[in-house]
Amino acid sequence: MPPPSAWTSRNDRPIIIPNGPVVTAPGRVLVAGTGLIGTSVALALREHGTEVWLSDADEAAARLAADLGAGTVVRDLRDAKGIADIAVLAVPPAAVAAVLAQAQECAVADVYTDVASVKELPVAQARERGCDLRAYVPGHPLAGRERHGPAAARADLFLGRAWALCPLPETAADAVEAVTALAVACGADPVRADPATHDRWVALVSHAPHVVAAAMAARLAPPEVPAGALALAGQGLRDVTRIAAGDSELWTQILSANAGPVAEVVAAVAEDLAAAARALAAGGAAAGGAIAGLLGRGRAGTARIPGKHGGEGRSFTVVQVVIADRPGELARLFDAAGAAGVNIEDVRIEHSPGLPVGVAELSVRPDRAGALLAAMEAGGWPARR
Amino acid sequence: MPPPSAWTSRNDRPIIIPNGPVVTAPGRVLVAGTGLIGTSVALALREHGTEVWLSDADEAAARLAADLGAGTVVRDLRDAKGIADIAVLAVPPAAVAAVLAQAQECAVADVYTDVASVKELPVAQARERGCDLRAYVPGHPLAGRERHGPAAARADLFLGRAWALCPLPETAADAVEAVTALAVACGADPVRADPATHDRWVALVSHAPHVVAAAMAARLAPPEVPAGALALAGQGLRDVTRIAAGDSELWTQILSANAGPVAEVVAAVAEDLAAAARALAAGGAAAGGAIAGLLGRGRAGTARIPGKHGGEGRSFTVVQVVIADRPGELARLFDAAGAAGVNIEDVRIEHSPGLPVGVAELSVRPDRAGALLAAMEAGGWPARR
Repeated sequence: MPPPSAWTSRNDRPIIIPNGPVVTAPGRVLVAGTGLIGTSVALALREHGTEVWLSDADEAAARLAADLGAGTVVRDLRDAKGIADIAVLAVPPAAVAAVLAQAQECAVADVYTDVASVKELPVAQARERGCDLRAYVPGHPLAGRERHGPAAARADLFLGRAWALCPLPETAADAVEAVTALAVACGADPVRADPATHDRWVALVSHAPHVVAAAMAARLAPPEVPAGALALAGQGLRDVTRIAAGDSELWTQILSANAGPVAEVVAAVAEDLAAAARALAAGGAAAGGAIAGLLGRGRAGTARIPGKHGGEGRSFTVVQVVIADRPGELARLFDAAGAAGVNIEDVRIEHSPGLPVGVAELSVRPDRAGALLAAMEAGGWPARR
Repeated sequence: MPPPSAWTSRNDRPIIIPNGPVVTAPGRVLVAGTGLIGTSVALALREHGTEVWLSDADEAAARLAADLGAGTVVRDLRDAKGIADIAVLAVPPAAVAAVLAQAQECAVADVYTDVASVKELPVAQARERGCDLRAYVPGHPLAGRERHGPAAARADLFLGRAWALCPLPETAADAVEAVTALAVACGADPVRADPATHDRWVALVSHAPHVVAAAMAARLAPPEVPAGALALAGQGLRDVTRIAAGDSELWTQILSANAGPVAEVVAAVAEDLAAAARALAAGGAAAGGAIAGLLGRGRAGTARIPGKHGGEGRSFTVVQVVIADRPGELARLFDAAGAAGVNIEDVRIEHSPGLPVGVAELSVRPDRAGALLAAMEAGGWPARR
């Protein structure tokens, strides 16, 4: 295996990540699988001048990615010996081991990584197939979109997202270093975990929440639920069920591939809910205590989710402004905020169904809320903290 | 009971609601209970010139509401005979019947309504106390905030929100008409339902989702869940668990007061989740089928939630724009959209933790997406549909 410099020296433009490590983008990368994730990796690396090669079982997908500026198509991996420093295998979980075996047989790269959202399954299959695990760094960028295919790809898809790296006991340290540099070059934040831990973590923070959202949303589906009930729906219901609108087929595959850890979390949620239902049905003071206990634990759980900019629960002050729902209105409002030197950290518009007005909820640093309120009032917008 | 004109003629300025009924705001209203909801009702009515009287067991709260311009304090309901056309009892569910009995004993108004988020409990208690049900219109505006008290009140709190009205068999038609006019004057959309139906509906769309969000969030609470797992959290988890951050004590009261209907929905969700967990643990093709079935039902459920502007699933096209996270940047962007004649229907900012850039997701009418993309690209912002 070549020294680290082979992966870090061919591109001499260092990547400056604010408050992050200075790394050098990989010089030559093969992306095998030009779907959303693979093409996005390619586009992100191209921005750093990396030489990118593209392959896909569906050659039209590879050509489309190339047309988008993601790199150059390789028709046959058997003609691609030594073409890359790193090969990124951006194929579905069940296909990772087969593609890894083929790519290693063709010796297309020095180091191999994948991007599948589960890790134990492809690792076990790679082990069974006798792949060279010293050169394999299982990976998983925590990024996605509701759409698929190279056309949906974005160079900025990984900006600020976590990118899990799950090296095996056999994996060489310099291989891990090379893939870490690739993740950082894509703008992501590398997070180290072993495959089993990774799968438990994503079961908790991604896969189980999807099942829970679906189970709540499923209560709204039966035709005997009248439209009148749904007319009472507010933002809370919309938020709880939003991700349940995702692709059922894709999610069935993901959940099946991480069945054990997901089952564990979902079963625990089911137990808590069944206990809450029993307590409510029984009534009395004990019921109130049980419900208060669950709500208290829920509140403690939400407080542990990191906030914006990765800060542990960094909190903003929300200023509410009544706005007309017409072109240019938000522009005037943001102009006024900008002129007052206030940076709006987040915005959510609460619409008034059926009415041409809404409430913009502007999140700002607490020490800027006063200036924003003054600016809004000077501009004639009713505003309240 | 006086003729309808007594409630509709004292204020001669008709309220024009776009695409809505033309009603006349009530002339004289007593708000008993000057918390968030009561004070917001008062402020909304004051904007139509309604004469508003305020009372609260906590006289400081009533005085604060008066200082906010919500009306004039009444110290003692015994001195308030005939003071109002409508009395709005904005007190907690368990207090409604007692306040109704007292107010009717003092004959403060011709018509009485309340704003509690459950309806069977106060109605049963009012019946037990022998209140005059002909003049009582149980109500529930579907609006709230995460903060409480008169200082958090907003005249626009009810704009475009549903306002449930639950007349009893005994309730006089003209009383219903008067309270309907009050709800419309506050900008709300009256929805008619009997008390039991109301309680089942809000159990489904508001109360049970709160319990479900809490149960998912509770999985994140134990200290043995490492920070590494939470570092992998994305927007999906944040949305599913957001409402679980609400006031545990208040929600315990609400859930206890609507225990039966909430228990039914929560038990059904728990059963679906337990079945999903069993299927995942068992594995195999049947498991995949069971999971796909649940996800499919969840997807169908989300499609039934009315979209923005009350339209049944009115959908917008989302355009994603990469923006720098600094004052004035959103203003420039919205300026460009406004100049292109594009109305931005909704906006969500996806932040890149730790990085000074983000992605603004702009929702626009599908036929305006092209114009927005062109405007963004002309302005130098990377944008994608």
